[in-house]
Amino acid sequence: MNEQAAAGNQTTVKVGLGERSYDIVIGPGILRDAGNRLARVLPGARAAVVTDETVAGFHLDTLKTALDNAGVGHEVITVPPGEKSKSFEHLQEVVDGILAARLERADVVIALGGGVVGDLAGFASGIVRRGMNFVQIPTSLLAQVDSSVGGKTGINSTHGKNLIGVFHQPKLVIADSALLDTLTPREFRAGYAEVAKYGLINQPDFFGWLEKSWEDIFAGGPARVEAIARSCQSKADIVERDERESGERALLNLGHTFGHALETATGYDSKRLVHGEAVSIGMVMAHRFSARMNLASVDDAQRVEAHLREVGLPTRVSDIRGELPDEETLLSYIAQDKKVSRGALTFILTNGIGRSFIARDVPASEVLSFLRENRPQ
Amino acid sequence: MNEQAAAGNQTTVKVGLGERSYDIVIGPGILRDAGNRLARVLPGARAAVVTDETVAGFHLDTLKTALDNAGVGHEVITVPPGEKSKSFEHLQEVVDGILAARLERADVVIALGGGVVGDLAGFASGIVRRGMNFVQIPTSLLAQVDSSVGGKTGINSTHGKNLIGVFHQPKLVIADSALLDTLTPREFRAGYAEVAKYGLINQPDFFGWLEKSWEDIFAGGPARVEAIARSCQSKADIVERDERESGERALLNLGHTFGHALETATGYDSKRLVHGEAVSIGMVMAHRFSARMNLASVDDAQRVEAHLREVGLPTRVSDIRGELPDEETLLSYIAQDKKVSRGALTFILTNGIGRSFIARDVPASEVLSFLRENRPQ
Repeated sequence: MNEQAAAGNQTTVKVGLGERSYDIVIGPGILRDAGNRLARVLPGARAAVVTDETVAGFHLDTLKTALDNAGVGHEVITVPPGEKSKSFEHLQEVVDGILAARLERADVVIALGGGVVGDLAGFASGIVRRGMNFVQIPTSLLAQVDSSVGGKTGINSTHGKNLIGVFHQPKLVIADSALLDTLTPREFRAGYAEVAKYGLINQPDFFGWLEKSWEDIFAGGPARVEAIARSCQSKADIVERDERESGERALLNLGHTFGHALETATGYDSKRLVHGEAVSIGMVMAHRFSARMNLASVDDAQRVEAHLREVGLPTRVSDIRGELPDEETLLSYIAQDKKVSRGALTFILTNGIGRSFIARDVPASEVLSFLRENRPQ
Repeated sequence: MNEQAAAGNQTTVKVGLGERSYDIVIGPGILRDAGNRLARVLPGARAAVVTDETVAGFHLDTLKTALDNAGVGHEVITVPPGEKSKSFEHLQEVVDGILAARLERADVVIALGGGVVGDLAGFASGIVRRGMNFVQIPTSLLAQVDSSVGGKTGINSTHGKNLIGVFHQPKLVIADSALLDTLTPREFRAGYAEVAKYGLINQPDFFGWLEKSWEDIFAGGPARVEAIARSCQSKADIVERDERESGERALLNLGHTFGHALETATGYDSKRLVHGEAVSIGMVMAHRFSARMNLASVDDAQRVEAHLREVGLPTRVSDIRGELPDEETLLSYIAQDKKVSRGALTFILTNGIGRSFIARDVPASEVLSFLRENRPQ
């Protein structure tokens, strides 16, 4: 795609959160202009770029050139790739790197990477000097449509995923859709699970469009930009109404309660299961569990599973290779999930495609029976 | 003092921050009723009590009994006393303790201790599950009049003090003025420096009252409660207008820019200098530097120094025992202080008692000359 076409295929989603509002700019090739965009939003700021070794190999030079061209001084802090970097140890490393660079509150931390780098760098920027400026340049589909909207940041604990963090909104998100061409097909599919999630939460028309358009989205071009933009808009609409997850925002956890339990069960081993795959299985489980509770039709659950399977995503616990713990243990992982409230199990269930809702007081016994019925043979 | 007199000598300061508003209850003996007070504000919450070994010896049993009487389940997390506990290592320890107790967002972290415990427990409560409820029971004068108002939490870095943290407001502060009887005279005096600070910032009448009443405040009784309440109200008024320190709140740093540099210079060795003593010296330096710059009268600087010296506080760099680094090094500590903005030196200076202001672009050369003129002989 040439520069002109790129400019024509560029769009901006505004996240409206009062004085914490910011733009998500989406389009192919826009990383090359990142320095100028940043300097317009944060004139005079110096930058600490946080990235991982894999992403640095693909995109760091482009970003450094863009920052140099705009006269934005910068230091680079590199962490190892993978979920294990969301730890206290690496948090301290990033925080120390930012302080060693003598950045002040008015300067900026840039996250160049996927969800792990975004969560880690965002958390660090939220606690250095009690909150510095933060700019996200998400390089995975998952990060572009999920982590880049809503300000959740954090690290993992031995007690569970994302249990430690802050809400800290970025000042700007630059989502270069062409960067996704460097993803493996498996990584792209995993991110696609979160795209489909927005249709399943409250936009049945979007889910219908995805069923028709998914191959164009995977191929790149205008359909990809549209899918990212509609996902970001969908999440922004929810976050604007409930920034700190006191209610509706929990809908974004569709598929995540089952999903997190499966990630814990596989020890966050990305060879066996990555986050988007866990969400894919979790969303199908949420629809099938809803059907079992007579809340939704079996047809809708089958339609969800058929689409996710068509794009190549796992949809059943039995799709996970290797041993898994027994159902009681899985239930205990679900109960430690942070969306538990006062011991009652809270799930996102559904009345059908695009009709998800927050179900409180779901009986643990029903969940256990469902898990047992679905035990891989 | 009997219970009845205690009840009559009890007062509440309201900190008005919209949905983050909270009460500071002040009076002698009110720790014994802490469980009921907490349960009224946070019904059904379980608690993690964070304290240090010294404070635990004096007050933990009283708090545990109060919680038991109110049916508030609780776990206790104890850290070593002293500034060194404001570290990543102890932060992780407290966070792990809260998660191991399986507390949820609707539960509560209680800080029972001085400024160190408040800053550490407050930070932990601000990042577990991206923000849990927090209640402060400050046990030092410094914590009752300073740390308990305004929601600043944090730990130290090798790069400087309080450089890592979040803004996280408590739901309730219980300031039992009788607990201060367990402080050493030196600890009480150090806290008193922050009381005097409120007069020096913008309340000359309060400073005048302190000059007359300080012995009653040290002795306990109604004057002590009044001094604590007026200090909290004074800080609350400023914080309500500027919660996140984008402007006026910086006035609360009167004496702190010089003070932090001296704390760094003495390696946070409490045998040589504690925070309130550093603030005392820093406030006198701020007044004398202001007089040197022809911003305030020498008489006012002398009056400030005379009062602080009368209560037994250090007022000069020469009051610090042992070797200190040279003036260039002290200046470099000042320049790393987080109140630096884009390389310019920002100080809180004054036009006289109760007339402090934020001075930006203070020439580093003038500060250096002032430090050299005051070199201990």
